[in-house]
Amino acid sequence: MVENVKALLFDVFGTVVDWRSSITREGEALGARLGIYADWAAFADDWRGRYQPAMEPIRSGERPYTDLDALHHENLNATLEAFGIDVLSEEDKQDFNRAWHRLDPWPDSADGLTRLKQSYVIATLSNGGVAIMVNMAKRAGLPWDCILGAPFARQYKPHPDVYLHAADALGLFPWECMMVAAHNGDLQAAQELELRTAFVRRPTEHGPNQTTDLEPSGDWDLACENFLELADKLGC
Amino acid sequence: MVENVKALLFDVFGTVVDWRSSITREGEALGARLGIYADWAAFADDWRGRYQPAMEPIRSGERPYTDLDALHHENLNATLEAFGIDVLSEEDKQDFNRAWHRLDPWPDSADGLTRLKQSYVIATLSNGGVAIMVNMAKRAGLPWDCILGAPFARQYKPHPDVYLHAADALGLFPWECMMVAAHNGDLQAAQELELRTAFVRRPTEHGPNQTTDLEPSGDWDLACENFLELADKLGC
Repeated sequence: MVENVKALLFDVFGTVVDWRSSITREGEALGARLGIYADWAAFADDWRGRYQPAMEPIRSGERPYTDLDALHHENLNATLEAFGIDVLSEEDKQDFNRAWHRLDPWPDSADGLTRLKQSYVIATLSNGGVAIMVNMAKRAGLPWDCILGAPFARQYKPHPDVYLHAADALGLFPWECMMVAAHNGDLQAAQELELRTAFVRRPTEHGPNQTTDLEPSGDWDLACENFLELADKLGC
Repeated sequence: MVENVKALLFDVFGTVVDWRSSITREGEALGARLGIYADWAAFADDWRGRYQPAMEPIRSGERPYTDLDALHHENLNATLEAFGIDVLSEEDKQDFNRAWHRLDPWPDSADGLTRLKQSYVIATLSNGGVAIMVNMAKRAGLPWDCILGAPFARQYKPHPDVYLHAADALGLFPWECMMVAAHNGDLQAAQELELRTAFVRRPTEHGPNQTTDLEPSGDWDLACENFLELADKLGC
């Protein structure tokens, strides 16, 4: 148990869902349909690799808030060009871009969230937009109480506004909220704002040769292997 | 069936929950505890009567967006003064103000929403804040996919921003969204923006002598007695 925590705020990409396997699977299906030969896991890594840089001008105020579907689409064009793939129609691109709405959950995600929801408010605190979060949740059976995060704050993590806006929207102090993430950087940003923190280890988010975020690197309130262990540790 | 509708956006106070009976019940309990004799149904009507006027300066831009918990608290002070009640501590007032987080659903609400959720995105499009909506939903078993409306748009219905922001957040055109409300005025505002509309009759929202919104007054796409009939008519 961690005292006084009333809401659990979840990072989503990597923490709740396995974006790499899902994007690879969708790429393979698209490749089979259009006769494109490519390393789709490498394609997924490249596409995702453009994610943080695309948000940077928004965090710094150089670019107005632009939602993640639009950034994903810009990044898809760049990755297609990098891989020398030029046979996708605009409709193909739009559908492939929506693969981010169809990501598979980790095996423990739905069951763990269902247990946690009995005792806590459970909300997304993702950089994904409302449509991504809602469509993904309905497909994967993720029983969120509400969607918070970037589309609400109109800013991207780890900008402090995103964390503080979520606590404020729920009528809670930051220390009544616990950030749950597989990424030490996300937890660091949350802890600096006095949120509580739970690290969940997702050692294959980046594939079998992952080198980052294999262990908790900070003094987090909790560290767990999955959401079922998180529910155990929170007494749910 | 109504073609192409993908999301149902719900008015909440009066449409999903019975605010008048709930506030009356909480007033009676408070009165019994503090020895206050009052007509608590009349108190509920007076408190709610200050709701629309309190939002008007925000809609017109005279006052910055202020969330409904804060407006409810200001209005509670005014109603207490009008009723000559001066024995509530600040803690009593804060707790009574949170009665708006503990409103009871109409008998068909939870079952109807559970059916509708199988085929549609179901979201709140209320003037209530995130905490009110989430706390109410957890207590009453309302399975929202997400909370949209005033706290997201930082504006109050019937300002067009609230409706259009919700459709945009879901990645939908207005005509792919259906506004569900017991209030003809709310449906009128939605229809003018090309949302589809469903009237649900709640003839005792204002008590046994209700005179308003007893019947659909516009050319709405659907009119129903409750959410179960709405689910039937939408083929859920």
